Amino acid sequence: MKLAIVGTGLIGASLGLAAKNAGVEQVSGFDPDAESLGVAAERGAVDKPASSLAEAVAGAELAVVAAPVAALPAAIAAVLAASGNETTVTDVGSTKGAVCAAAAGESRFIGGHPVCGSEAHGPRSANGDLFEGATWFLTPEASTDPQRYRLLHGFVSSLGAVPVAVDPQAHDRLVALTSHLPHALANALLNQAGSNPRIWVDIFLDNRDAIAAGLAEHRRRIEQLERALAAGDAGFLARWIGEASENRRRMLSRAYPDPGQLQRIRVHVPDRPGVLAGITQALGAERINIEDFELQHESAERGGTLTLLVSGEDEAERARALLEAQGYAASVSPVLE
Amino acid sequence: MKLAIVGTGLIGASLGLAAKNAGVEQVSGFDPDAESLGVAAERGAVDKPASSLAEAVAGAELAVVAAPVAALPAAIAAVLAASGNETTVTDVGSTKGAVCAAAAGESRFIGGHPVCGSEAHGPRSANGDLFEGATWFLTPEASTDPQRYRLLHGFVSSLGAVPVAVDPQAHDRLVALTSHLPHALANALLNQAGSNPRIWVDIFLDNRDAIAAGLAEHRRRIEQLERALAAGDAGFLARWIGEASENRRRMLSRAYPDPGQLQRIRVHVPDRPGVLAGITQALGAERINIEDFELQHESAERGGTLTLLVSGEDEAERARALLEAQGYAASVSPVLE
Repeated sequence: MKLAIVGTGLIGASLGLAAKNAGVEQVSGFDPDAESLGVAAERGAVDKPASSLAEAVAGAELAVVAAPVAALPAAIAAVLAASGNETTVTDVGSTKGAVCAAAAGESRFIGGHPVCGSEAHGPRSANGDLFEGATWFLTPEASTDPQRYRLLHGFVSSLGAVPVAVDPQAHDRLVALTSHLPHALANALLNQAGSNPRIWVDIFLDNRDAIAAGLAEHRRRIEQLERALAAGDAGFLARWIGEASENRRRMLSRAYPDPGQLQRIRVHVPDRPGVLAGITQALGAERINIEDFELQHESAERGGTLTLLVSGEDEAERARALLEAQGYAASVSPVLE
Repeated sequence: MKLAIVGTGLIGASLGLAAKNAGVEQVSGFDPDAESLGVAAERGAVDKPASSLAEAVAGAELAVVAAPVAALPAAIAAVLAASGNETTVTDVGSTKGAVCAAAAGESRFIGGHPVCGSEAHGPRSANGDLFEGATWFLTPEASTDPQRYRLLHGFVSSLGAVPVAVDPQAHDRLVALTSHLPHALANALLNQAGSNPRIWVDIFLDNRDAIAAGLAEHRRRIEQLERALAAGDAGFLARWIGEASENRRRMLSRAYPDPGQLQRIRVHVPDRPGVLAGITQALGAERINIEDFELQHESAERGGTLTLLVSGEDEAERARALLEAQGYAASVSPVLE
């Protein structure tokens, strides 16, 4: 397999490292920023840094375009123009509607989107493990050559990612609801995830219709709640909380085989090295599987709250007893009522 | 010190256990539900289960009312009526406006609210460590006897909590923004925290004005964002994301002495017992202090993503090297840009 990477920032360089780990023989790369390309080569993400886009894609079986969202349509068009029939082209952008529209009817192009958040930038932060376990959306269309789709599907799987085929418009509605809308709301609540404004402005604008639809729906719910509070409507509030609980149960049942079994264990811990090691070691030694684990720091003086999720009441009781033996008073409660 | 607890559910019984741990000699208790009172006594949260409210509070220096929010004003009035001048009265309700208005001008009453989330119910789940490190709001007013305030302040501190004095109305606006509004929004996003509808309907209704004000402000921000998206206003979006980042930096600076130093380390881990122990042990052995720690489960097959926060680039680099030595590929990025 001969792979070409166009754009050797964080995602492109991580892709190169992951491909090398997966046994890809030759990875050529190009980036308009010579320094970025140099770092990617230095880190072993690219075997063959090319001096032009055409040189990078020449003879490649697969070319992956890893440019910023706003530059993607032009970059994909350039890669399609510079490459021949032997080259299948894909991208890794966060939105798919505009990209797929720009490549409309081109049987060599299939949109892609690995869902692997990282606030890092540039090839120095590249990580060959970045796609391990990640969902990787692929957006084949009626015009897509099935053999090229199989090639891309196999490549994505070989990196440890989980390919999921979806229509480009459905993809954008999905990420609007699961990623862009929560991000927008976190911003609205002045509590967002330290994002790079440049990247997110482009994503917001690129997926504005789907995000606007999500925001309008959210605003409708807020207005409903405002009316219920103004009217003191206890019945509405009880139904509304109950529905949310039911939705939460459905969501949890995707990540856990039996969410009704999940037990939450909370314990207050001091802020010093070794505390987490002591706790996880004791639980690990007893083969208690920790499903989720969260330490929420309060302050250096006050320590933090540790929340563990385990499956099953017996398992939770064993965990509580082990924590008590270490001098911690733990409380246990079911995640779902 | 002689303490009376009125209402021996989760909070009341936890308070009894915490008070016994702190050396309080005698804890009397009353609950209209005889079974709840029996369990609290069995668990050692109450030394002296009383057969009436009057018997419980007789001769107490401090009476804590731990009834549900909707029942609080009547319960506080009953405790004030049943007790004499030697008894200072407080409560542990999530809202303070209605309660303090009901006890208006009574120099023996001071409102209280320990902020210690637990989804558990009833005295069986009581935990003497529940208040350790927790903020405990106290709402003294002009009519409050300063000596009684000192008594209550000392008692709360002795349980390991951090007393914070605040005006009752300011308290309710504060919890509306920091707890009730996020809870309402989580509900609106169909993704809430598995709460007990009965408790939350009462809280929403009790604090409806402050929550409605928060919701209206949130809706205004949503509408602003909808307009910016409709107009494709990149300048607005960039400013808006930048402001949120700045607010986030301010928030973080309360929990961490130097948030600019915080580094986020991400690593993908398999879902099996002992993995967390191996990682936390290696970091603990090298005296790397983990500020925050979160394992987000994807599924049994796909494992999960572990996110660690450490302070300082050198510390992060040491942690990354240790993780790599264990066979994990970790990425490091600053929490704030």
